[in-house]
Amino acid sequence: MLDHPEVSPSAQTEIALIVGAGPGISASCARLLAANGFQVAIAARTATKPVMLELAKHAAIHCYSCDAGNAAEVEQLFAAVTADLGAPTLVIHNIDGRSAGIFRKGVAEADADLVLDTLVNSALSAFNVAQQAARSMRGRDLPESGHRGTVIFTNASATLKGFAKSAAFAMACQAKTGLAQSMARELMPEGIHVAQVIIDAAVGVPQADGSRKHWAAGVTKDDNMADPDQIAQVYLQLHQQHRSTWAFEVALRPWNEKW
Amino acid sequence: MLDHPEVSPSAQTEIALIVGAGPGISASCARLLAANGFQVAIAARTATKPVMLELAKHAAIHCYSCDAGNAAEVEQLFAAVTADLGAPTLVIHNIDGRSAGIFRKGVAEADADLVLDTLVNSALSAFNVAQQAARSMRGRDLPESGHRGTVIFTNASATLKGFAKSAAFAMACQAKTGLAQSMARELMPEGIHVAQVIIDAAVGVPQADGSRKHWAAGVTKDDNMADPDQIAQVYLQLHQQHRSTWAFEVALRPWNEKW
Amino acid sequence: MLDHPEVSPSAQTEIALIVGAGPGISASCARLLAANGFQVAIAARTATKPVMLELAKHAAIHCYSCDAGNAAEVEQLFAAVTADLGAPTLVIHNIDGRSAGIFRKGVAEADADLVLDTLVNSALSAFNVAQQAARSMRGRDLPESGHRGTVIFTNASATLKGFAKSAAFAMACQAKTGLAQSMARELMPEGIHVAQVIIDAAVGVPQADGSRKHWAAGVTKDDNMADPDQIAQVYLQLHQQHRSTWAFEVALRPWNEKW
Amino acid sequence: MLDHPEVSPSAQTEIALIVGAGPGISASCARLLAANGFQVAIAARTATKPVMLELAKHAAIHCYSCDAGNAAEVEQLFAAVTADLGAPTLVIHNIDGRSAGIFRKGVAEADADLVLDTLVNSALSAFNVAQQAARSMRGRDLPESGHRGTVIFTNASATLKGFAKSAAFAMACQAKTGLAQSMARELMPEGIHVAQVIIDAAVGVPQADGSRKHWAAGVTKDDNMADPDQIAQVYLQLHQQHRSTWAFEVALRPWNEKW
Repeated sequence: MLDHPEVSPSAQTEIALIVGAGPGISASCARLLAANGFQVAIAARTATKPVMLELAKHAAIHCYSCDAGNAAEVEQLFAAVTADLGAPTLVIHNIDGRSAGIFRKGVAEADADLVLDTLVNSALSAFNVAQQAARSMRGRDLPESGHRGTVIFTNASATLKGFAKSAAFAMACQAKTGLAQSMARELMPEGIHVAQVIIDAAVGVPQADGSRKHWAAGVTKDDNMADPDQIAQVYLQLHQQHRSTWAFEVALRPWNEKW
Repeated sequence: MLDHPEVSPSAQTEIALIVGAGPGISASCARLLAANGFQVAIAARTATKPVMLELAKHAAIHCYSCDAGNAAEVEQLFAAVTADLGAPTLVIHNIDGRSAGIFRKGVAEADADLVLDTLVNSALSAFNVAQQAARSMRGRDLPESGHRGTVIFTNASATLKGFAKSAAFAMACQAKTGLAQSMARELMPEGIHVAQVIIDAAVGVPQADGSRKHWAAGVTKDDNMADPDQIAQVYLQLHQQHRSTWAFEVALRPWNEKW
Repeated sequence: MLDHPEVSPSAQTEIALIVGAGPGISASCARLLAANGFQVAIAARTATKPVMLELAKHAAIHCYSCDAGNAAEVEQLFAAVTADLGAPTLVIHNIDGRSAGIFRKGVAEADADLVLDTLVNSALSAFNVAQQAARSMRGRDLPESGHRGTVIFTNASATLKGFAKSAAFAMACQAKTGLAQSMARELMPEGIHVAQVIIDAAVGVPQADGSRKHWAAGVTKDDNMADPDQIAQVYLQLHQQHRSTWAFEVALRPWNEKW
Repeated sequence: MLDHPEVSPSAQTEIALIVGAGPGISASCARLLAANGFQVAIAARTATKPVMLELAKHAAIHCYSCDAGNAAEVEQLFAAVTADLGAPTLVIHNIDGRSAGIFRKGVAEADADLVLDTLVNSALSAFNVAQQAARSMRGRDLPESGHRGTVIFTNASATLKGFAKSAAFAMACQAKTGLAQSMARELMPEGIHVAQVIIDAAVGVPQADGSRKHWAAGVTKDDNMADPDQIAQVYLQLHQQHRSTWAFEVALRPWNEKW
């Protein structure tokens, strides 16, 4: 933990761990969870990137450094968060992990090393996070609610459909779905809620002038990009679901999206 | 409207219409929506059945009689609700519609007339309700939110997978999904949120002693039946989603369900 | 049977029954099966339509009249075919059944009576045919191959995805998929192979000049419409599959189709 | 090429390349294709394993050594096969790639290194093969049929559904599906048929006494394991499909399989 060492973990406070940090979904989740009384740990490869420094100003948000494709680093992350704040009951994996070098490259053109990087940074990192979450949550006494904790994976349109010139990303996204499905079937009967949220849209990060901006799709003033603050509400609602009625998968898209 | 003729519709109050009335999801939705400030119309073939009489005691819940498989009756229902309460902005179709006579009958044994009854009572009734909702919501001025209203279909496991000895029900459920998908693609760009909630479980109606009871699966004291009060929360959350992030489909199942 | 009364059924000859008759898939299947030694019965509402008269010129193809939405007529059809030719071991349901009046009509505009007609002519007719096939094939002694017979449903893109302004057709197509899934799970363990072939394309009927023509998509000289003679090969291959390796579903589309 | 150096490639002969070699699907495909006039190259990590030595006795089957998880080795394999036999027009990727060490391991127990091995050996090897096939087939002049070649991926039940205690395998299988979907959408419009065959069953290798044997499921005398000779027929049929009617996916399962 790079900040706020004075936090004293409490049995009453819920701990969330968000792995992956961008100005979109991760930042919105961190703020929403903090506003709802969570102590929030957020981890990125570079803990000093601007969005992290901005989030770290919030008393309930704590920034960590972690390369999630590395199993040992993820183990250390969970150990550090648990020592600093307590064991997380909500874990969110929100890493795209796509190598810039394979963006819109055809099967014949993509570099196999970058395909592997994408698999490691996106799908294997999800496995690493899932594994530590499973170990940690299994170790908890079963609360009266029967709900030991929640693990949520963010996923993309490419898991619904592998698009042309997007093979590596489709491989990573669908691998992540395979993990989420398998983990849900294994761990839900143990009281661990596993879910994935598919963002079938560009996520538009709010700008100062009220517009939204997406790294690839540009700027819009309309509602045709997913608002990350709205997405964050769904993550919180999933975590709050009663174990008699758990959703495994929710796909979110704007009103005017083609699908 | 069979009750509470004194309601004076208000621009500020939201109107919900629930078609289909059992002691499970419909009753839970009616109570939750009423508790959240909605005026609620609820319609069943027999408006005097016990659950309806019980719901009608609530000042904000209003009971109507309608055979939803009959297009003319559905048109009259919407006209009556609109006249009595105002145009609904949330419409829920929650009719199973399965003929008792085809329950667990094989393809060789089922009666074709009952297969047709099931298609009419379940899938065609969904179309009838969808059509009136589309007409009514399209007629509204577009509010600042860009969200003219929400139509939610309840669906069952059989839409995910057609089980043996369940052909007629699988036909009706999957037909309903076809309707919902087509309607979503048509009407979401006009500001109408279309969604379906798949209950991949038995719905357990709470009993006086704290147990839950399902018409076919019997009684349980555990959380292995879906709690209709929890399901109702999802319907309300879907209606409250911002149009930048609409979910089309959510499947709910208990922690220990096989799937 | 309207023709060739001299046929003497033989234990060695396979009997196929095709319900639905157009110049595309049904005609191609009839010709291919006849060329492969089957006695072929083909049924349409109007047994005297041009394609039927043309097919009836083939000694091994026999035309019948049947409104497949009517359970009693389908029962009579199977009785007549069995009496004339023998019990069919390959049954193909190839009825689109869409009412012209609901083509490209939105949910608000479509006529509920035509939606019901579409459900009856497409999905209920599939049930009627499936039921008679199940009864007939179950009655056969189990051959050494363990394969009592094959039932194949033709289906359309709308079962993969409900498109805008296509609600009734999506309902009917997905209902048919529900039937096929349920029936496969029920009857495959009894040695009856159930399959559906999804034509994710326009079917182009060969014209005299080598072009292909589709009722709605027009004429093409390219391979961008599905060739019904090629489709028919898949039906025959499905029927010939060994019971250790049965395919339930095959979707066929041209090389340049968007999907 | 480790055998038969005397082969003289001919424009008329079709060349098939099978990557992955076990006694099941690969061996059956090799024999069937050879019997149908193909020159067949088959590659495995260990070209001297018993099944390879057995296959190499056939004059039209040629064995190669290749670690398909290594992009450079796959490039060399295609170069060698092309030099020896000619450019392949049918490429089959048939590698399971699952590390024995993660078999039936839960998410908490599996070793992250073995998860990565599984992704590399199964999904990345599929990418490597797909890439070389795309480069090679694209380089061909378009034949009159418009069909430059076929790439077929073998896949498993885990791509349809991620089972408990099978996360790594589900990840690899679903990644492979993402690759196949993306590649099909990219390359089918260029005349390259991309397909995947899902074996939703144990593959039973024929034994001398007429029984079948599966490495994990044991021995059976019934038809409840998929017969690899039957599976091979489907691969050949897929390759022979006309480009107006290409199937992307076929799942095969025995008559009595639960699904």
